Amino acid sequence: MVRVVVDAMGGDEPPEVVLEGIARALEADADLEVIVAGNEEVVVPFCAKHARAEALVTTECIEMGEHPTQAVRRKKDSSIVRGCRAVRAGEADAFFSAGSTGAILAAGTLVVGRTKGVSRAALACAMPGIDGHMTTFLDMGANADCTTDMIVQFARMGQAYSQVVLGVENPTVGLLNNGTEETKGSESALERHKALAEAAGVNFAGNCEGRDILTGSLDVIVTDGYTGNVAVKTVEGTAKFIVSALKAEAARSKRVAVGALMVKPALKGVAKLLSGDAYGGAALLGLKAPVLVGHGATNPEAIMNGTLAAARCVREDLCAKLAQAMSASQA
Amino acid sequence: MVRVVVDAMGGDEPPEVVLEGIARALEADADLEVIVAGNEEVVVPFCAKHARAEALVTTECIEMGEHPTQAVRRKKDSSIVRGCRAVRAGEADAFFSAGSTGAILAAGTLVVGRTKGVSRAALACAMPGIDGHMTTFLDMGANADCTTDMIVQFARMGQAYSQVVLGVENPTVGLLNNGTEETKGSESALERHKALAEAAGVNFAGNCEGRDILTGSLDVIVTDGYTGNVAVKTVEGTAKFIVSALKAEAARSKRVAVGALMVKPALKGVAKLLSGDAYGGAALLGLKAPVLVGHGATNPEAIMNGTLAAARCVREDLCAKLAQAMSASQA
Repeated sequence: MVRVVVDAMGGDEPPEVVLEGIARALEADADLEVIVAGNEEVVVPFCAKHARAEALVTTECIEMGEHPTQAVRRKKDSSIVRGCRAVRAGEADAFFSAGSTGAILAAGTLVVGRTKGVSRAALACAMPGIDGHMTTFLDMGANADCTTDMIVQFARMGQAYSQVVLGVENPTVGLLNNGTEETKGSESALERHKALAEAAGVNFAGNCEGRDILTGSLDVIVTDGYTGNVAVKTVEGTAKFIVSALKAEAARSKRVAVGALMVKPALKGVAKLLSGDAYGGAALLGLKAPVLVGHGATNPEAIMNGTLAAARCVREDLCAKLAQAMSASQA
Repeated sequence: MVRVVVDAMGGDEPPEVVLEGIARALEADADLEVIVAGNEEVVVPFCAKHARAEALVTTECIEMGEHPTQAVRRKKDSSIVRGCRAVRAGEADAFFSAGSTGAILAAGTLVVGRTKGVSRAALACAMPGIDGHMTTFLDMGANADCTTDMIVQFARMGQAYSQVVLGVENPTVGLLNNGTEETKGSESALERHKALAEAAGVNFAGNCEGRDILTGSLDVIVTDGYTGNVAVKTVEGTAKFIVSALKAEAARSKRVAVGALMVKPALKGVAKLLSGDAYGGAALLGLKAPVLVGHGATNPEAIMNGTLAAARCVREDLCAKLAQAMSASQA
């Protein structure tokens, strides 16, 4: 039995949305137990009705706008901090929340703790590719400033994730850059390129560009959290632009309107692929236990997928294998 | 009469594509003269057949893969260098090429020269917005490493472009970042934020994210060329992903296939909006005369639009107004 703590208070949606997602996850996975963290009136009635759900009653809630580290230090009885504590105490195997990414990162680092050899945890997601192959992309925004060493660590962590969670053998790693040639890039990109090419255990395939994020041609793409966040948000914004530009065209032409209606479910499916929700959101790599982060604007399906993905990380023993990869590189 | 030099040898397509675009531009604009730069066998027969076309016979060609500055220094009789020389000598008012961006930037800087007060020229484009409003986005990739001063200059240059070319009054400027809050960002982003907030003559609206590039909510978005290139290429890659994912869905479902056929022209139009070709490609801001850069993978329409956009920059006196904005800020 795998035990995942799910934060019932996380996200911009009411807790009912999260609870509905937990119910679906319990239904989908008979070997799953969910510890539901949140306010008493939210979690207790739900857990009374579901066999493999256990209430973790908390009294505080970290809001989306709060300063992450301060909030984690002050709100010791929040669903995020208590959820991470349950993981550290061994009462649960993994934590999943659609709450503040910064607070989850801070609690994950301060409470769950980092894997040996990891300077900073990074936020990774699986990006869908044109050829159906998924690319592990990190850092999505956990660390705005990164040293070259951190980028090399991200490459190793990304390889471990790609192998363990996505089943890729000997994953290739690309460095996000403003050009594919070896000589291209900012000063820090040039340094990162050199370090990745020389790093033991990194299967480095060279530089790549923003257009390579969604082709599936690389198994892992690494960058700092500043650039990674810009890229991920740009994907999101472009998908939104295309959908709304198509809507505007449909308002002008009856033919386009009829066609748009016919492709709408397919287009929604494509947009969902890009939202990351289909793969359970993002994973914080480099912590001692799986900690997963969902979109703030969530829905029951995304919560279900995030909960199931957390369980998968536990079963596949992601953290132990990632720790192995990190210690092998130090030898 | 406005005189624009167009590089017939630029781009990945055969020169015939460029010539077809020039022919269309001449047809569309009766007050336009085009100086066609390129190999004799390409430009002379074309100019013999077109009244307002004049041949500038060159013997060399800078390839896409060459080192920009070295190529510009060595190939003095290339279409790019000779085109820029014609502009500097006052024989032409503007230069447009779909050739190597790096070589055009190098020739623009070394031959045409920078505007007083400009440290480095930047590559700007007009991004379409969901609300129909266009956002001037720079730097798209001319300068991978940027000082804070350069970012402030980009803000001023972007404002001048937005005002003069897109007709926006008192344009707002956003700083691309990994979060909208003032406290968010890498160390350099925090510095840039502070400098933009304090800069005279910059109508700073604060931080923005990758998702804001295509909403039209800001008139100008500034960033360094490394991040800007990643963002622009990510837009391109996302559009490609969506189109091909929709194709894959159409192969699976007849209903989607029929609908896709009906929305295809509209979707193509949207993709064209995002390619930048509709606005004549990108402009190098900060040079003494308009120098415009087209996509390497070009087509006659894009060449026509680029040529007409170069003429528009001349008529609107973009460079003089940009120089005014730069000198006013120094006062």
